[in-house]
Amino acid sequence: MTTEKVSLSEIFSPRGVALVGATPAGLSSFATGAIFSLVQAGFPAIYPVNPKYTEVLGLPCYASVRDIPGTVDNVMVSIPAESVLALLDDCAAKRVKSVQFFTAGFSESGYAERAELEKAILRKARASGFRIIGPNCVGVSAPKSRFITSLAMPLEPGPVAFISQSGGHAWNLPYFGAPRGLRFSKVVSYGNALDVDESELLDYLAQDPETEIIAAYIEGVKDGRRFFNALKAAAARKPVAIYKGGTTEAGQRTAFGHTASLTSSVAIFDTLCRQAKSIPVDDMDELTDVAVALRFARPLPRGIGVAVVGAGGGPSVLAGDEMEKAGLRVPYLSPEVQTQLRQFLPLAGSIFGNPIDAPNLTVPEAISATMHILGRVTNIHMLLYHMGFHPISRWGDGRRSWAPLLGPIAEALLQAQQATGKPALVALCPPPDIAGMPDFLAAQEAFVKAGFPVFHSLRQAARAMACVVAWNQM
Amino acid sequence: MTTEKVSLSEIFSPRGVALVGATPAGLSSFATGAIFSLVQAGFPAIYPVNPKYTEVLGLPCYASVRDIPGTVDNVMVSIPAESVLALLDDCAAKRVKSVQFFTAGFSESGYAERAELEKAILRKARASGFRIIGPNCVGVSAPKSRFITSLAMPLEPGPVAFISQSGGHAWNLPYFGAPRGLRFSKVVSYGNALDVDESELLDYLAQDPETEIIAAYIEGVKDGRRFFNALKAAAARKPVAIYKGGTTEAGQRTAFGHTASLTSSVAIFDTLCRQAKSIPVDDMDELTDVAVALRFARPLPRGIGVAVVGAGGGPSVLAGDEMEKAGLRVPYLSPEVQTQLRQFLPLAGSIFGNPIDAPNLTVPEAISATMHILGRVTNIHMLLYHMGFHPISRWGDGRRSWAPLLGPIAEALLQAQQATGKPALVALCPPPDIAGMPDFLAAQEAFVKAGFPVFHSLRQAARAMACVVAWNQM
Repeated sequence: MTTEKVSLSEIFSPRGVALVGATPAGLSSFATGAIFSLVQAGFPAIYPVNPKYTEVLGLPCYASVRDIPGTVDNVMVSIPAESVLALLDDCAAKRVKSVQFFTAGFSESGYAERAELEKAILRKARASGFRIIGPNCVGVSAPKSRFITSLAMPLEPGPVAFISQSGGHAWNLPYFGAPRGLRFSKVVSYGNALDVDESELLDYLAQDPETEIIAAYIEGVKDGRRFFNALKAAAARKPVAIYKGGTTEAGQRTAFGHTASLTSSVAIFDTLCRQAKSIPVDDMDELTDVAVALRFARPLPRGIGVAVVGAGGGPSVLAGDEMEKAGLRVPYLSPEVQTQLRQFLPLAGSIFGNPIDAPNLTVPEAISATMHILGRVTNIHMLLYHMGFHPISRWGDGRRSWAPLLGPIAEALLQAQQATGKPALVALCPPPDIAGMPDFLAAQEAFVKAGFPVFHSLRQAARAMACVVAWNQM
Repeated sequence: MTTEKVSLSEIFSPRGVALVGATPAGLSSFATGAIFSLVQAGFPAIYPVNPKYTEVLGLPCYASVRDIPGTVDNVMVSIPAESVLALLDDCAAKRVKSVQFFTAGFSESGYAERAELEKAILRKARASGFRIIGPNCVGVSAPKSRFITSLAMPLEPGPVAFISQSGGHAWNLPYFGAPRGLRFSKVVSYGNALDVDESELLDYLAQDPETEIIAAYIEGVKDGRRFFNALKAAAARKPVAIYKGGTTEAGQRTAFGHTASLTSSVAIFDTLCRQAKSIPVDDMDELTDVAVALRFARPLPRGIGVAVVGAGGGPSVLAGDEMEKAGLRVPYLSPEVQTQLRQFLPLAGSIFGNPIDAPNLTVPEAISATMHILGRVTNIHMLLYHMGFHPISRWGDGRRSWAPLLGPIAEALLQAQQATGKPALVALCPPPDIAGMPDFLAAQEAFVKAGFPVFHSLRQAARAMACVVAWNQM
């Protein structure tokens, strides 16, 4: 059998998907979730496979992959490791293009016979011309192809690609990023990286016209030189942010137990990332924050000067501290600029030096005037507006409705951004209770819709912007 | 007039409270909120004062403090700074014990005449024998006296005292801490510290039988020697956690603009805090986290070894990294201990070295067995259980109800804690949407009720516990 390697773009647009090991709801949360997700996304050809059932979640269920009447390009597997080799013969007979294994318990288990089994899988795949994703992963989502296998993934496509050696993170980043406006071109969980690996994915995404921003969670790379070249080439075309899992002794050995990754020293990895002009980040939250910043800060700031504007003395002191601890600068404003601000900000309860705190900084007109003035200051490169870190802006307290103000505040920020060429950023603190959630989510949605990056703490805003500026100044 | 200084305990149990500058709802959010809060708490004698109204929020409103028929011990002021001296004559005539100023625009404004006005306030107070709280603050809450002036304060009293130079933080820490089980003896926002200051408050709280834990947000101290002595004496009796606002250049000058605080270098302040055996923390979130740890970790851990248990490979790698980056240790488990764990944790999808990851670590029996084994390992000093950082434990996904599991999981942790003498800690990640909030809040409530510290990220758990252990080992 002569085989040309199946390309990633074929993997991302399967015509039919089989779910091997699918069971009625509740028994197999992975396959159940994937089927629900595919149905929700309107994927046209979903085939549960399990000899024990004739129907799963209302879909006809087949005894084997061979029995499926239609074309099957992708097979998602959640059966025990012991049974996978026989399955692969069926896949070969059906001429599938890719097989992704939720199934775990291979090389990462530390048992030699399981590592051998993994190698046998690869040999079968090579012989039959299909590709392997994983094992030990949650696979692929590609919204433009309606190929969505996670309930947490927005159906609407977008410009962010995320590759993740962890399935949990592959689900969580879209789940937490979606309300902040992130939409995805491709999300790939690739687990043990037996076949499809981070370097091939980077090569592909660098060229992918649907992808403008790449985020990556990587535990280990198998060929350092190849990875460095792929990363460098990708980062030359679009921003690539990376969290390297396993940066400590405990993290490293857990990464081996997780995906059989032999992680290198974090210092070496960090240096390599910087040399490749990618953006190394410090944890998963920061990866999400940096993706949000890269996606929405317009333009990306070209310096570390930040103006911080919002109501609340304590939050303003905290904001000053958080910005500068993260490596940004909060430039002191000249007497002339302060005099301009005093024309419409009250004396009592206000602070003018930067951060700017005034009780009326929840009023669109005051925000607009303030931001226009600050955006014209030379050593200020971005404009951060914060809300919800102070009782006067507590969500859902029943005393004030934010709804009528949100549009005008967003509009004020947008005009200042356009007039001054400095990006506006927003920090909103989520409430700890249900009472505040509708107000908070409405505010977040208003700012996201208007095109702003929204951060959930002053610290997170500061750290993400510091990462982005450092990269943008390279 | 001979005057003995009014004590703080008198300030914390006023018999009647006047709210000067009260207006109907919506116009004055401070006074409105305070009145609502006092009503909600069942405080018996609330007197709005404003010559423009005869009724405010359903209560009779008086033209001046002198006109109030009953006893008035505390006066809360939210009128412009220009009018306060005349008001103080009324307060003196009424023989009030304390006057707290929400009113701002004094020394912190930077104007000499406003600093003079502040001094005049103090002279009047000294001459008439009443005390000043603030100005530029939100004042006092003391739940046992039903003297609650913030809507965010739980009515039920508890052992945590919080003193805060920022009014915003004074409201926010209880707001965010309450769902995590924090209850308060006294919360005092003291603003510019014109009269009542951090040192007097520390002296009082050190002796206060209602207070077991002290948290403090301090921007500056006016008498460093006196503060150091007060801190040292308080910290000798109970844990004192401090966030020093204004640790950077921007934070420092903002602290001056906020409460006229001349902050010292953060290095000096940190050293001083450690010498006094208090617990310096890095921001307001960490202050809340440390208060939660001090309140609920039983016993407080005596070493940095942590066992991390939960489902999810990616989250486990992250957990290992976050723990060790924060200065904790995640000891590798001996082959004997790993063998014990393998008896009831499956091979596929599990990691045994510590962090421990297994798909059945959402099952109470597996959690119980795991925790009992780990708690007996000598170099493990605390047991962290995490949930909600992984899709299989995503809140509110409609595929699984956590409700029936929560009680048994909490019970499993409690038994392991009691059997091994190592504290159990819980990390739960809040959802980004409303759909997940009921599940998340139910889980949080179950763990809080069972007496565990609940943290909202792995990083926050790690950092708080590292602070607490460092202090507990001093």
